[in-house]
Amino acid sequence: MRTPFMERLHRAIASKGAPVVVGLDPRPSLFPEDVWGPEGSGGDDPRRNTADAIVRFNELILDAIHDVAVAVKPQLAFYERWGWPGVMALERTMRMAKERDLLVIADGKRNDIGSTAEAYAQTYLGVPMPDGLAVSSGLEADALTVNPYLGVDGLQPFVDKCVGGGKAVFVLARTSNPSSAQLQQLQTVDASARNEPSSRGGAGPTVAERVADVIVSLNEGLPRSSGYGPVGAVVGATHPEEARRLRSRMPGVMMLVPGYGAQGAGAKDARAAFDEGGRGAIVNSARGILYAWHAQRPGGEGTGDNFAKAARRAALSMQAELRGVLL
Amino acid sequence: MRTPFMERLHRAIASKGAPVVVGLDPRPSLFPEDVWGPEGSGGDDPRRNTADAIVRFNELILDAIHDVAVAVKPQLAFYERWGWPGVMALERTMRMAKERDLLVIADGKRNDIGSTAEAYAQTYLGVPMPDGLAVSSGLEADALTVNPYLGVDGLQPFVDKCVGGGKAVFVLARTSNPSSAQLQQLQTVDASARNEPSSRGGAGPTVAERVADVIVSLNEGLPRSSGYGPVGAVVGATHPEEARRLRSRMPGVMMLVPGYGAQGAGAKDARAAFDEGGRGAIVNSARGILYAWHAQRPGGEGTGDNFAKAARRAALSMQAELRGVLL
Repeated sequence: MRTPFMERLHRAIASKGAPVVVGLDPRPSLFPEDVWGPEGSGGDDPRRNTADAIVRFNELILDAIHDVAVAVKPQLAFYERWGWPGVMALERTMRMAKERDLLVIADGKRNDIGSTAEAYAQTYLGVPMPDGLAVSSGLEADALTVNPYLGVDGLQPFVDKCVGGGKAVFVLARTSNPSSAQLQQLQTVDASARNEPSSRGGAGPTVAERVADVIVSLNEGLPRSSGYGPVGAVVGATHPEEARRLRSRMPGVMMLVPGYGAQGAGAKDARAAFDEGGRGAIVNSARGILYAWHAQRPGGEGTGDNFAKAARRAALSMQAELRGVLL
Repeated sequence: MRTPFMERLHRAIASKGAPVVVGLDPRPSLFPEDVWGPEGSGGDDPRRNTADAIVRFNELILDAIHDVAVAVKPQLAFYERWGWPGVMALERTMRMAKERDLLVIADGKRNDIGSTAEAYAQTYLGVPMPDGLAVSSGLEADALTVNPYLGVDGLQPFVDKCVGGGKAVFVLARTSNPSSAQLQQLQTVDASARNEPSSRGGAGPTVAERVADVIVSLNEGLPRSSGYGPVGAVVGATHPEEARRLRSRMPGVMMLVPGYGAQGAGAKDARAAFDEGGRGAIVNSARGILYAWHAQRPGGEGTGDNFAKAARRAALSMQAELRGVLL
């Protein structure tokens, strides 16, 4: 029985002082020159050159932010982009993060029917296969983001892996992108309208609120750490009003809040996802930290060292901003 | 300008006689013994042994079904399960399928906010990056399944790649799993109820029907092939009544129908996704074909050859069943 994710997360927040998550979204066109090896160093496969540069870039970033952030969130798309060498770079990145005592949240937004969701759960939550082929994928994270569109039997295989393995899932509820409201904020008809105090002219909860209810019910009966169950929610920082409503609808549910920084939300917006005591959420910034150098250009030189120093300053400033609204 | 996916698909259906799609979902515990190399042939990494067996298994299956099926649908979870060696096996599988003139539908159910969806689109729909790093991921498919929960700006980057590249996407609308109704069949409140002839006591369309409307609007203005635009829909065969309703709601939208065979739906159920002329859908079976041998055990011996022969018989029988209801 491994230490629950939420317990490890709370310890990290206590020791580091603020729930900063750094999104590891490698965009090679924004890399400093000196993370690139000599041309052709990856053999005749240009994907390998890129994958090697990703690993060097991530290593610089991890060294710069490991004592500031509580977790890192690699966005899987940016590794898959480079095929199998990219996935190898993801494996090496995850290992480097764990070596620096950072929690790893794989942002894959995976989803499928039960028997296939099981394979994704084995891949990213690292659970032995029922048939005894207990071979790790090498991509074992501490938590995984998942998409709820398939309903609870597409989520349950992930949740089943959380308890014994000390893992967590974060289920997309309300995302941070511009058209996220299109489906997520549709109002649904409430079959049990009598029980639902309605402030919207007879309409029931939104789709995102229905997902919130599913998340709450998935946590039911599972062990909690400091009040939080292993099933969390993704709630974007770009919709503070809705984050506040979802916060009160999902007590005991940890929120992963994207959209901080480059997507336009600040610490005051993110505050809406926390409870009154300043707990219950972690906040992710990717571009605003990784590529801070492009905005700051302290000395003008494109060296990796300046790049990493700028990332560290950005992470520290995010930490201070969050502390400012939480304490 | 490459030949549109839907045109290539219609040609394949015409030449092969039925819209059979074979799901390439490798489950190593069900493999015949002789696709496995000698222990340790993958070096000291057991994932490589497994990945090699996956490639040999898929090659046998592809040889057996290439003149029966119009497309194959690798389920990405079953490759990611083995980490980067598994993704390398996916690349080799896609290449083998293309060499046999089979269309490849990558079943990844990917989804993310716009800038990240772009990276997934580059990965699986093989489009050069805007920054000029036009390196292929090696995982270029002809089509990709995507999840609509993030709304249209999470879908648009995929759709943008379809036209010039001759690609397609299939957007999840109504999936085949037991709890799929939980979100997908929620009835929404119709803001423009006057325009919607309502048969459900004042309620508007279901979430799945809303997604259907988004799919129709994504196809608007895009070139069509034999009447079909590049944005298709995933509609499970396990809900024929809803498939029929969605069919009439989405004219000109190709449906990818999973759930045939092992998930319990037959040709009569799948018929609901086709239009009156027997067009507009393709039907996927994975376990029912790949592992038919486990059900049939013709001679009792576990050789790959029998395995592949059983798969071919199962594919031919599915083809005949579909012809029976379509002609």
